[in-house]
Amino acid sequence: MSIPKTQKAVIFETNGGPLKYADIQVPKPKANELLINVKYSGVCHTDLHAWKGDWPLATKLPLVGGHEGAGVVVGMGENVVGWEIGDYAGIKWLNGSCLSCEFCNTSNESNCADADLSGYTHDGSFQQYATADAVQAARIPKGVDLAQVAPILCAGITVYKALKTANLAAGQWVAISGAGGGLGSLAIQYAKAMGYRVLGIDGGEEKGEFVKSLGAEYYVDFTKSKDVAKEIIKVTNGGPHGVINVSVSEAAISQSCQYVRSLGTVVLVGLPAGAKVTAPVFESVVKSISIRGSYVGNRADTAEAIDFFTRGLIKCPIKIAGLSELPKIYELMEQGKIIGRYVVDTSK
Amino acid sequence: MSIPKTQKAVIFETNGGPLKYADIQVPKPKANELLINVKYSGVCHTDLHAWKGDWPLATKLPLVGGHEGAGVVVGMGENVVGWEIGDYAGIKWLNGSCLSCEFCNTSNESNCADADLSGYTHDGSFQQYATADAVQAARIPKGVDLAQVAPILCAGITVYKALKTANLAAGQWVAISGAGGGLGSLAIQYAKAMGYRVLGIDGGEEKGEFVKSLGAEYYVDFTKSKDVAKEIIKVTNGGPHGVINVSVSEAAISQSCQYVRSLGTVVLVGLPAGAKVTAPVFESVVKSISIRGSYVGNRADTAEAIDFFTRGLIKCPIKIAGLSELPKIYELMEQGKIIGRYVVDTSK
Amino acid sequence: MSIPKTQKAVIFETNGGPLKYADIQVPKPKANELLINVKYSGVCHTDLHAWKGDWPLATKLPLVGGHEGAGVVVGMGENVVGWEIGDYAGIKWLNGSCLSCEFCNTSNESNCADADLSGYTHDGSFQQYATADAVQAARIPKGVDLAQVAPILCAGITVYKALKTANLAAGQWVAISGAGGGLGSLAIQYAKAMGYRVLGIDGGEEKGEFVKSLGAEYYVDFTKSKDVAKEIIKVTNGGPHGVINVSVSEAAISQSCQYVRSLGTVVLVGLPAGAKVTAPVFESVVKSISIRGSYVGNRADTAEAIDFFTRGLIKCPIKIAGLSELPKIYELMEQGKIIGRYVVDTSK
Amino acid sequence: MSIPKTQKAVIFETNGGPLKYADIQVPKPKANELLINVKYSGVCHTDLHAWKGDWPLATKLPLVGGHEGAGVVVGMGENVVGWEIGDYAGIKWLNGSCLSCEFCNTSNESNCADADLSGYTHDGSFQQYATADAVQAARIPKGVDLAQVAPILCAGITVYKALKTANLAAGQWVAISGAGGGLGSLAIQYAKAMGYRVLGIDGGEEKGEFVKSLGAEYYVDFTKSKDVAKEIIKVTNGGPHGVINVSVSEAAISQSCQYVRSLGTVVLVGLPAGAKVTAPVFESVVKSISIRGSYVGNRADTAEAIDFFTRGLIKCPIKIAGLSELPKIYELMEQGKIIGRYVVDTSK
Repeated sequence: MSIPKTQKAVIFETNGGPLKYADIQVPKPKANELLINVKYSGVCHTDLHAWKGDWPLATKLPLVGGHEGAGVVVGMGENVVGWEIGDYAGIKWLNGSCLSCEFCNTSNESNCADADLSGYTHDGSFQQYATADAVQAARIPKGVDLAQVAPILCAGITVYKALKTANLAAGQWVAISGAGGGLGSLAIQYAKAMGYRVLGIDGGEEKGEFVKSLGAEYYVDFTKSKDVAKEIIKVTNGGPHGVINVSVSEAAISQSCQYVRSLGTVVLVGLPAGAKVTAPVFESVVKSISIRGSYVGNRADTAEAIDFFTRGLIKCPIKIAGLSELPKIYELMEQGKIIGRYVVDTSK
Repeated sequence: MSIPKTQKAVIFETNGGPLKYADIQVPKPKANELLINVKYSGVCHTDLHAWKGDWPLATKLPLVGGHEGAGVVVGMGENVVGWEIGDYAGIKWLNGSCLSCEFCNTSNESNCADADLSGYTHDGSFQQYATADAVQAARIPKGVDLAQVAPILCAGITVYKALKTANLAAGQWVAISGAGGGLGSLAIQYAKAMGYRVLGIDGGEEKGEFVKSLGAEYYVDFTKSKDVAKEIIKVTNGGPHGVINVSVSEAAISQSCQYVRSLGTVVLVGLPAGAKVTAPVFESVVKSISIRGSYVGNRADTAEAIDFFTRGLIKCPIKIAGLSELPKIYELMEQGKIIGRYVVDTSK
Repeated sequence: MSIPKTQKAVIFETNGGPLKYADIQVPKPKANELLINVKYSGVCHTDLHAWKGDWPLATKLPLVGGHEGAGVVVGMGENVVGWEIGDYAGIKWLNGSCLSCEFCNTSNESNCADADLSGYTHDGSFQQYATADAVQAARIPKGVDLAQVAPILCAGITVYKALKTANLAAGQWVAISGAGGGLGSLAIQYAKAMGYRVLGIDGGEEKGEFVKSLGAEYYVDFTKSKDVAKEIIKVTNGGPHGVINVSVSEAAISQSCQYVRSLGTVVLVGLPAGAKVTAPVFESVVKSISIRGSYVGNRADTAEAIDFFTRGLIKCPIKIAGLSELPKIYELMEQGKIIGRYVVDTSK
Repeated sequence: MSIPKTQKAVIFETNGGPLKYADIQVPKPKANELLINVKYSGVCHTDLHAWKGDWPLATKLPLVGGHEGAGVVVGMGENVVGWEIGDYAGIKWLNGSCLSCEFCNTSNESNCADADLSGYTHDGSFQQYATADAVQAARIPKGVDLAQVAPILCAGITVYKALKTANLAAGQWVAISGAGGGLGSLAIQYAKAMGYRVLGIDGGEEKGEFVKSLGAEYYVDFTKSKDVAKEIIKVTNGGPHGVINVSVSEAAISQSCQYVRSLGTVVLVGLPAGAKVTAPVFESVVKSISIRGSYVGNRADTAEAIDFFTRGLIKCPIKIAGLSELPKIYELMEQGKIIGRYVVDTSK
């Protein structure tokens, strides 16, 4: 396989500046890195934040965004072991970590202070050839559809990790707040595969149909419910044991602390800008609830999330566009007009 | 042992009404209950709330308060097994529970919806003879000083349970916010006995001396620190793995969500009226912290907390007064003038 | 509902002595007990042991056996709360426990030294009216088929508890050794409902068909496999994460310590008389495996196991016979001629 | 710091062949490795097995043994991050692992099938300059006594990991079988620091004195006890919650399955050649015990075990000899004549 000197990418030089579809140099993998020929990459809200630069953490500049890239290994540094040319590999949000801090030492590498982030502090998957630390790159079985698996590499892993954080037993109820969105629809499917009973919360009849078709036993339409918390508590006979907050509504997040079951767990996942979670101390103590932040998954979560997908238990409805169309996709995203997940084909 | 027909008690007929030191009937134990000759009873802030009736949950009326009673078994119902006349027994906040709900079934009886509460929904330990469900009554080894052990029955169990809720490993750091108070001073000692490293937070030099004398490695004086969060993070090399909030400051509680270590646990224990805990979603997710409410302990927590005390690892500085002086103690408590814990002698 | 003075029962006066289908007195519930009109009762190998008296623990005599009884509450003692006449209730192996020891205090009441055992130390479900401690009696939702649910009350709870003891995550492999038998067929179904991948082990093609029909992904026929351990390790890509030993073969139990995955758990459930589990220390250490005994479930396990059944996720193939035919069923059982589970109808 | 071309080492060319104290080449670190100037190295029974080649796993040949090396970083490969020349570093049994398998992904790198083992498959610490994977090398704080810390790097970590595997709560009983030996004496101290109550088991009065001086509350002398199991059960009021088997007696290991408390954990650590653990199935089930193999610790266990040592909570009685005397130490070890731990000074 011959690797070209230059390639197509979408790059920007200043936060919020022009998104250029341009020819840039193909990067060289460091000793510990893979060079991956990215075939497809999912487009995530985080990519929009990285471009705008509106999060407290600075991006590298100029930057190639993207952190849901699925492709084929075409090169590697001299220290890489356990990978072969031609293997399928995925680029995740966590490109690499220090491997030696207390968080890396306990498989919590996502919390590493020196984490290197794809499409943020490390050029990402909106290019045809990207580099990734061989330790963190996702292993994708041969034969998997690379377009379909792309959103699993961030959205899938994130909701799977959130469900693990809820620490539920099979047969228990989990509520998905924002069930009809991209993360929510994946969360429903993972939850079902893990043996949980799913209650979906979102707005509108269409979303209700969709949520139920994915396996939710019950749908709460917040545009119609007289009392969302009361309805949820009644249906689940005391409140759900866990709540996954993938909605971006601050009010919905705090409300989940009310309807969660005694001893249950509210998981924070979605990141509405500047949002806070607020809970009454008295009720939180008497009900002994937990409120837990869940970030992206580690290597094990990644392997497991992909395994559920590979076994056919998770479907991800995607729309494929060319990489060159990325600026338009960002526009649609800003306008809140996207349903489902866009995946870009880097060859177009 | 002959049991009298009447006894001394402190009783009130309306919330906030007169606290009468009076002669009342000795209660009769139900089939599943012990009759305990209370020798000493600790006085807790909760007793003040019960009297005033300023919590969302209604008290029984008229009411005999008190839920930290230590005494001797003098009678029992016909269904009681495993107890003998003359055994030492303790009256706790949780007087009895349904034993059959999902919470009772999983040793979380404190969260039982039908919990019967001493000194709140069931006449408590501010009388010479009180009844307690034999299943929930605390077993106190013979030879233990009944005055000293009284505060363990609520304050001790509560902080011990909170420390368990923080889910720490030996060698990890725990911060006690409000370390110089009654709950805090017990929390320091339990934390040490469990192998944790303790950082105490409170105000003033005198409290600092006291906190260190109990085993805290470091004291943060919030009246002097330039930046409490920064100082705590520095001393603990990244933030404490757990925080026990026994302070009644709402601001201190929310601040603890900032300085807690990534993956660490903030435990809510103290119940300042109407207080809320507020945490930023972004940081909570990226640091993957947990905020957990911890209520009173179960039967196992009770036995364990008493065992630490019995083994001499926990000292509780108390002031002994007569039961008849209870109204005065309430006054001092309202004025915030109490340091340490009052224990009343029911014979006076 | 009028309760008769006498009733039909199968009773024996000496271990191994005649099993009499006779009229005996209807028992009176103690203050803490329910009186249950048993409609159906499953027949378990343990009943055979109780009759023969060949276990190290002595039975009461004379004895009415049976510990999988499903019926209707027709009376109760004066201390019982939370039950109503007409409720469906189940009689389990654990009839009652002390509620106050360290095991009862931590929801491990099955390990209580003073456990009272149905059909062993307490007259059981092979009679029309039986008593059960109201705290331990199983709650069965109205509308459930009482014949079908009977075997869940021991066999179902036992395998469900064993699966919990294996401490697996959804998506992991569990091997069921003895998958084609009564316990095994339930274990497969619970394992599927909990999100695990199931490998069944048993002998013969017919059992293979059966095992696969219940949801096992793979079947290892020990009568045909060239190397059982090797085959299992290969199929599961390194060994199953958990093994449930419901087979009564001592050799099979020790073999499971070989093929279990590193860090995996071997669960002991079946009780072949006098059997031992043997594992090499070196390999057990290097692979860091766990070997864990799992006894019957607690109240929570009971409620959960019944909930899976009620939701239609567990089917139990039963054969119904009259209570009067019990001696014949024991004969068939001794001859190893029973496939599936017998349930006796107490009205015949 | 100038690094010489050659150095002193103890090397052998065939298993069981001559142990030569010779001049050999100083190794060159790979891109991911540190070059450590070993100052001191502990001598462990495993080193004897490596030399003899009597374990099922083949050693590299020729081989420099040793896996408890403490020294100073003097060089490193170009990919190493997070280390500086002059840092203190430790060489452990686990020199490196693949970082990508399911075990590495979950912080269980000791169970990695491609683990590289110091003094076994990778030249170890019985030389003046040794290489170690920078990810796995132990971080030792400046100022620590390198001779004293050496045995912590294998013996200390191993017993600390075993105690974690026992999964105890502070205040529970742990029995150390073989308490008077090298591993046992460290285990007692770690157990105390973790808040456990310690019962030591060994033979003879002298060992009893030693065991108690380290903090054990009770000593069982198996040369004098009339019934070891009975005595242990009595003293601990039901059996210890955990047992750490560092004795090399096969009989003692199986006996520990008898006296362990219901729901307790027997941990296998010591590796007597060809030994098996045997437990009765019936009692293991009814008591619901766990038998768990515990191998060496991971990076987090290493950091924690060193932290306890650094904080002064663990003392390790050592005898220092010259590296050139290693063959004599092996002789003494074979003859069972060593009390305490030998540490060799590589400069002599």
